[in-house]
Formats: sequence, structure tokens, C-alpha cells
Amino acid sequence: MKPDQAYADLLAHIKQTHALGQVAGLLEWDQETMMPPDGAAQRSEQAAAVEAALHERRTDPQLGDWLDAVDQGSINGAEQVNVEKTRRAYERAKRVPAELAAEIARITSRAQGIWAAARAAKNFEDFAPTLATIVELKRQEATCLATEGTSLYDALLDDFEPGMTVAVLQPLLEGMRPRLANLRAAIADRSHAQPKMRGHFEPDAQLKLSRLIADALGYNWEAGRLDLSVHPFSSGTGGDSRITTRVDAENPVDCLYSTIHELGHSLYEQGTPVEHALTPAGQHASMGVHESQSRLWENQIGRSRAFCVWLYPRMVDAFGDFGLADAEQLYRAINRVETGYIRTEADEVHYNLHVLLRFELERELIAGELEAADMEEAWNTRFERDFGLAVPDASRGVLQDVHWSVGLFGYFPTYSLGNIYAGQLNVALRHHVNDLDGMVEAGNMQPALTWLRDNVHRKGSLHAPAELIEKAVGSAVSAEPLLSYLEDKYSTLFDLA
Amino acid sequence: MKPDQAYADLLAHIKQTHALGQVAGLLEWDQETMMPPDGAAQRSEQAAAVEAALHERRTDPQLGDWLDAVDQGSINGAEQVNVEKTRRAYERAKRVPAELAAEIARITSRAQGIWAAARAAKNFEDFAPTLATIVELKRQEATCLATEGTSLYDALLDDFEPGMTVAVLQPLLEGMRPRLANLRAAIADRSHAQPKMRGHFEPDAQLKLSRLIADALGYNWEAGRLDLSVHPFSSGTGGDSRITTRVDAENPVDCLYSTIHELGHSLYEQGTPVEHALTPAGQHASMGVHESQSRLWENQIGRSRAFCVWLYPRMVDAFGDFGLADAEQLYRAINRVETGYIRTEADEVHYNLHVLLRFELERELIAGELEAADMEEAWNTRFERDFGLAVPDASRGVLQDVHWSVGLFGYFPTYSLGNIYAGQLNVALRHHVNDLDGMVEAGNMQPALTWLRDNVHRKGSLHAPAELIEKAVGSAVSAEPLLSYLEDKYSTLFDLA
Repeated sequence: MKPDQAYADLLAHIKQTHALGQVAGLLEWDQETMMPPDGAAQRSEQAAAVEAALHERRTDPQLGDWLDAVDQGSINGAEQVNVEKTRRAYERAKRVPAELAAEIARITSRAQGIWAAARAAKNFEDFAPTLATIVELKRQEATCLATEGTSLYDALLDDFEPGMTVAVLQPLLEGMRPRLANLRAAIADRSHAQPKMRGHFEPDAQLKLSRLIADALGYNWEAGRLDLSVHPFSSGTGGDSRITTRVDAENPVDCLYSTIHELGHSLYEQGTPVEHALTPAGQHASMGVHESQSRLWENQIGRSRAFCVWLYPRMVDAFGDFGLADAEQLYRAINRVETGYIRTEADEVHYNLHVLLRFELERELIAGELEAADMEEAWNTRFERDFGLAVPDASRGVLQDVHWSVGLFGYFPTYSLGNIYAGQLNVALRHHVNDLDGMVEAGNMQPALTWLRDNVHRKGSLHAPAELIEKAVGSAVSAEPLLSYLEDKYSTLFDLA
Repeated sequence: MKPDQAYADLLAHIKQTHALGQVAGLLEWDQETMMPPDGAAQRSEQAAAVEAALHERRTDPQLGDWLDAVDQGSINGAEQVNVEKTRRAYERAKRVPAELAAEIARITSRAQGIWAAARAAKNFEDFAPTLATIVELKRQEATCLATEGTSLYDALLDDFEPGMTVAVLQPLLEGMRPRLANLRAAIADRSHAQPKMRGHFEPDAQLKLSRLIADALGYNWEAGRLDLSVHPFSSGTGGDSRITTRVDAENPVDCLYSTIHELGHSLYEQGTPVEHALTPAGQHASMGVHESQSRLWENQIGRSRAFCVWLYPRMVDAFGDFGLADAEQLYRAINRVETGYIRTEADEVHYNLHVLLRFELERELIAGELEAADMEEAWNTRFERDFGLAVPDASRGVLQDVHWSVGLFGYFPTYSLGNIYAGQLNVALRHHVNDLDGMVEAGNMQPALTWLRDNVHRKGSLHAPAELIEKAVGSAVSAEPLLSYLEDKYSTLFDLA
């Protein structure tokens, strides 16, 4: 086999595999937005058929032959990334026995329904045996994947944040705890005095305003669309990066800020390098970097005073009088800080504490130090330790997230990593974009998007995540900018000493 | 290999293949209804990836092993259908060399764009070389597929109408020509006196009325949906059978009757036997039978006087005054007969003459008796022979249909076969359903749907198409009922001698 032909053949193969992966994503998008209810049975067959074809392609022995035949010296940077990432994925896929992979797919496919039923019944015990099975299978998988010197948890984490290890991540995340706890304590119940929105918020008006926000942020409608779903999500990449939102007629913040969050994800996907489309080099760098884009737009920009100046009159246009007198009141209303049970509803101060709880528990589960059966008790004890509240039931506790039921272990910490990256990118953005707040007040987000395009989006996966962030912001990964941002913002807001 | 295990393994394999085929259908549905324009490039990669996986599954040598190991004596009727149809498909797939199949896929994928550009430019010569290549490749394919005693055209026809041959089809279709020509001549230009609709027809009101029609026909919204597309189509099966329509603000007939036509297709799909879902036995019997369902609802029911009695007040509700005084005027307006160039716009009298022209030309092409380069001249000469009109340009002549550009030869005659079947089913329906017209006038289509469910839909592919029709109507396939229906209807309408 000629080395250059080997690379060409390899590339054609991985592009087609990647396209098939996009098909799997489209099936999910359709299921959440368009599919009629009676389509569910055949949809799971369709998804299984695509998964089977993907598995076959990802473990195709030809990949090994091509990878061996490629002449590393004759290929450029992006090509090297493609070869390395493909080799890594191929070796990982090969290390997991087909029967184990199939068993995990089978269990997690059933488990989502069991979890949902248990959550509805607020009964952890209905889910505990399934969780125990999933943890056991994931531990087996991690044992296959772990290499010399990496822990089982590291092996799982690597799927979401390539190159990241517990040794680096744990001090980074745990290091935030004292200052977050202090800030939380300092704010305590001062939030009750903050203004609240009142009124009825027409669903159509919320969607219209969501579209206006998408326009302002620079979302390309020729390469995307906005639909409704039970849980907002972003789907697809490049020329087809769709988002969904949801509408609560009593609370427009849920719709508008879900939209901004998902726009952050899809703006990233729309900006990935088209010349590397369908190859590893052209994909998002990691889940952490992905989350940094959604959180930066949602929080550092979307929950800024400047954004409220832009948004307030548009909300008045959309909803009439909604109980807030001006942009300053809107700013205060959308930055309420309250202790709650639910991660997805948490404010910026509490959010990472929710993640820390999950990170700690799932590390212990995968390490075998905690049994699935003991998870509810462990959750409740530690939640009270961290939040000072007793968990009233499992649906507001250990059963609130879908992640573990679908086998996602090592995913939660990427949320906090995303917040940390967003904190750093926010500083860099304000350094490089002249008068960012003035631009945002005027609804001109283009300079911010352009900087993110140039420094994050267009880099695809050419760099490892931490290296990408370091190149973009000019310093090593650190939680300091995020913590300073939170302390500054909330000290001013709540007039803390 | 144990025989019963062989059947179980075979069934699991073909179900997954079938589910993957549904995924290919969903990609097309999404492309025509939801996909943002910039998604086109990756969509073609996605479709190619699914096609490649499908091809691999359909030619998987395991199929041959299982088929050999199945004990024919121990399986029931539906199982026998599954084995026979799978064997037939597998052997056909094996007979066509992979390079030829890939070449056909490649050419026809490009050809659609070339055809569309040629049609827009009204220049057949832009498309002629591509058509010549397609014809040559399809002749090669047919040569691989043809068996002892079957012609090349038979081999292609079999994909759409299993078991049908030119020896049976040609006399059946050509036999209609004299009576259709006589009817056409007798009506001549009497149609000019027929009433016409006037006014502006709100797109939303057209869609609302389309949904009302779907309700009346018994369309199950839990197992389907209605969207807009450039060309109306029906997509999917069983629990997920979607339709599309289109809206012309000047002409509601296009929207309403496209909806009824596609509803006919999707009602059939919604009614296929769920116990045989994802297997050959559970699929529609043929393209001809499929078309019989759309045409029966569109024409024999939808264009009946009784249906107009039901529809007229609903059109008044939807559109206000639209220039027609009563249901009788509506009946006359939607049954205008006019010679035109375009098959898809043709009335019931002219439609089959359009099909006969294509059937004749494509038979000669595949037989090698006519060159692709000579097609425009052949079309124009014969069109004038059949319709008494000179073709003004290729876009209204030889370039009007997409079929040949995507390699569909042997498909056109199934349209007329569908009309013939519909003619027979219409007689049987009126025989078995007491006071069908009275039911339809009252908007009670349930008895008609139930009879079709019991006698056509629920039979899936358990019988060959002609056998299915014969069992349903109690007599052999014949064009006589269709011709009598047309002669009766239009003689009365136009007061012919």
C-alpha cells in the first residue's frame, strides 16, 4: 500500500464514518422535535441499525492497515491530528470486546426508561439495581481502556476531555470550593430583595424574541434552525447546526437563556473549520471547550448589565409591562442567587457546587469506593453538607440527571471545566475587543463572535483543549478568572463587604 | 447451523437492514422539509454513508448461509414470504457487480443536478449525454438481472412491480389507449364552459383544511405529520408515516388534492401489518398497489360528487366566496378536462396517455431500439400524435420528469397500473360498503378505510400484487372498471352522446 494512498483511503473512510455519526445525531434531533409518538418503536430500531453500522466502521481492520501504512513524515498538522485521533479511537474501540460494548448499549438503552420511571415515582430503589449494573459495566469498559498510569475514571474522562486526568482536574475543580462556599454564604438570603418578573409571556413572543437574540449573536439561519423540545439542545455541525428551546408562559428567562446557551454551542459548531469537515481535526476540541462557548454567551455576556441594556426594551416590545422598571432591574432579576436542589436551574454561584458533588460521587463509584445501592444516602448527606438543605426526595436529588442512566461517567466535570474556560475567555475577550460592553449594549456581538471564531471555533481539534485555551487567552488553565469574575459581579450586586 | 436459528438470525438481520432503509428515507424527508440550505453538502455524505452501509448489509454473505440453512417446511406463510423476498433481493444484489452498482449510484446522484439545470435552460442536449450513460448502465444492470425468458425491461420492472412482465403489462396498458383517445376527442373543448375558482386562498387556511381532510379520511396523527415541501410526497411507514403538501395562494386544488393523494399513500403505510413490521411481508405489495391507494382517494373518492358535497361548505368556511355557487359547481371545477403538456397536472382522462408515452419510450431505450440522443425528437413526435399539440420546449416535454435522471426505468407504468387497480377497488368498495356516497357526503370515510385496511393494507406483501387485487375485488386484473368509470363520469359531466 502506498503511504499517500493509505492516508487518502483512511480519510475517505473516517469521513463516511463521521457522516454516519451525524445521521445518528439527526435521528435524535428528529425524535425530540418532529417524530410522531407512534414512531418510537421503529426509531429505536433505526438508531440501533445506525449504531451497528458505526461500530462496524469504527472497528474495521482496514483502519489498522491504513494507519500502519501512513508515512507520518509526509503529512501536515491537520493530517497528523486525523491520524492520531483515528488511531486512538480505533485502539480504544478494539480494546473493548464487542459483547461488552453491545451489553452497555443494551442496558443504557433500557435504563433511560427505568430511570425516568423511578424519577417520576421519586423512588431511587427502582433505579439502584440498574445503576449498579451500569457502573459495573462501565468499570469493565474502563479497565479495558485504562493504560499504564491512568485510573479507571481517567479512562472514561478521556472520551469527553481528551488528555485530561483526575490528577489535574480534581485540584482545579476542588480548588474552587472554598471561594464558592464563601460567596454563597456571604450572599445568603440577600437575594430575596431582588426584583422579580411578573405577567404572562406569550409563547410566540418568546420564540420571536429568541430569534431576534439569535440574529444579534450572529447565528447563521442558512446553517441552522430553531425548534421546540422538552429539553433544549444543540445538534449537528457546520452547515447544519440546529438548536431547540422550550417555552414556559410564566417564565421567559428559561426560554431566552436556554436559547442563548444553545446558541453558544451552535455558534461554535457553525464556526468549525469547513476545510476539515467530517474529519477529527475539524471537530470541537472537547466537551469542556464546547460548554465554555455556551456558558460564555449565556453568563459572561448574556447575564451582563450591558446585555440587559440591549435586551430590556426588546422584552418590553415583546411582552409589554412585565413588572420590571428598567434594564438595571432586569439585570438584578436574572442574576438572583438562591440555593436550590436542581443543577440545571442553578445560578452561577451554585452551579459548580452541584457539579463538584457529582464529580466526587461518580469518582467514588467508578473507583469501587461507593456502591450504587448507597448512592441516595451519599447524595443526601453530601448535598446537605454543601448546600445546607435536606433533599426532600430522590427526584430533586440523586435521580435528577439523565447522565448516569445513559452511561455518562466523566461527563459532569466538563461542565465546570467549561465554566473555568469561559472565565478565562471572558477576560481575553474584554482585553482584545475594544469596549465590549458598549458593543453588547448596542447589540453588536460581531466583534465578540469574530474573536471566538478566530481563537476557538476555527481551530477545531488542531490543539488539545488546554493548549487551545492557553493559546487563546495567553495563560495556563486556571479557575482564578472565573472566581474573580463571580466575586466581583456578586459583591457589587449584593453590596457585600 | 440450526434451521430455526437460521430463520431467527436472518430475520434480525433483515429487520435491521430495513430500519436502516427507513433512516435513508428520513434523511430525504428532512432534506425536503427541515434541513437548512447549507446542510446540503454534508447531507449527501450522510446519504452516501447510509447507502454504503445498506449495500454492505444487502450483500452480506451471511444472508446466503442463513437462506441455505432455513428449513422451508417448518416456516409459516409470512416467514416463507420473508425468505423468498430476501433470497430474491440477495440474489439480485449479488448479480450486479459492486463497481456497476457504485457507478450507477454515482452517476444518478450527479445526474439529478444536470437534469434540473437542463430543464431550467430548456435544453435537452445538456442532459442527453448523461441520459445516454444512465441508459447504458441500466442496460448493463438489467443484463445482470435478467433471467431465462425475461427481457431487460422486465428485469427493471420487477423492482417496482414484483412478478409483472411487459408481456402482461403492455396489452393491459395499451389496451386503454383507444377508449381514452375516444373520450378525449369527445370531450374536446367542452371543458371551457366549466366553472372556475376565483379569489385569494390563504395558505394557512389551505393547510388547516388539509388537516381537516386528513382527519376525515382517518389519518392517524399519532403516527404521522403534515409539512410543506416543493413537491408533495409521502414518507415512512407504520407508526411514522408522514406526508407533505404545497400551497399555491391562487389555486387551492393543488394543495388539497396533493394532500389527499399523499394521504392515500400514508393511510396504506399506516395500515401495513405491525406484526410483520421491518420485514418484507409487512411492506406495501408494490408501487402499483401503492399508487392505487393514492389515486382511489384522490380521484374515485376525492373527485366524486359526494366528496364535493362534504368539501364545499368547508371550503366556504376556509376561503369565503371563491367564485363557485355550490357543490355541483365545485364538482365541475375540479373535474375540468384539458389537454396539457405536464403529466403531474393531467386530469383523469389524459393522465394515462402521458404514462403510455413514457412507457413506450423507455421500453425502446432499454431495448436499445431508441438512442438517448434521439429522445427529444421521439418525445415531441409522439406527443403530437397522442395529444394533438406541438411541444413548445423540452421543459414541458422530455425533461419534465425527474425519474430517468435518477435511474428509474420501469417505474412509470406503475402509475397506470395503480389507476387500473383503483378502478377495480372502487367497484369492489361500492359493492361492499353500503351507500358509500352517502357516507362520503357525511364525511364518514371510516367504512371505506376499514374495507381497504382489511383487503389491502393489512395484507402487506403476503400476496403478489395481482393476486392481492384479485382477492380483494374478486376478479382478475383488468382496465375495464377504470375505463367504464371514466366514460360514465365524463359522459354525464360533459353531456356526451
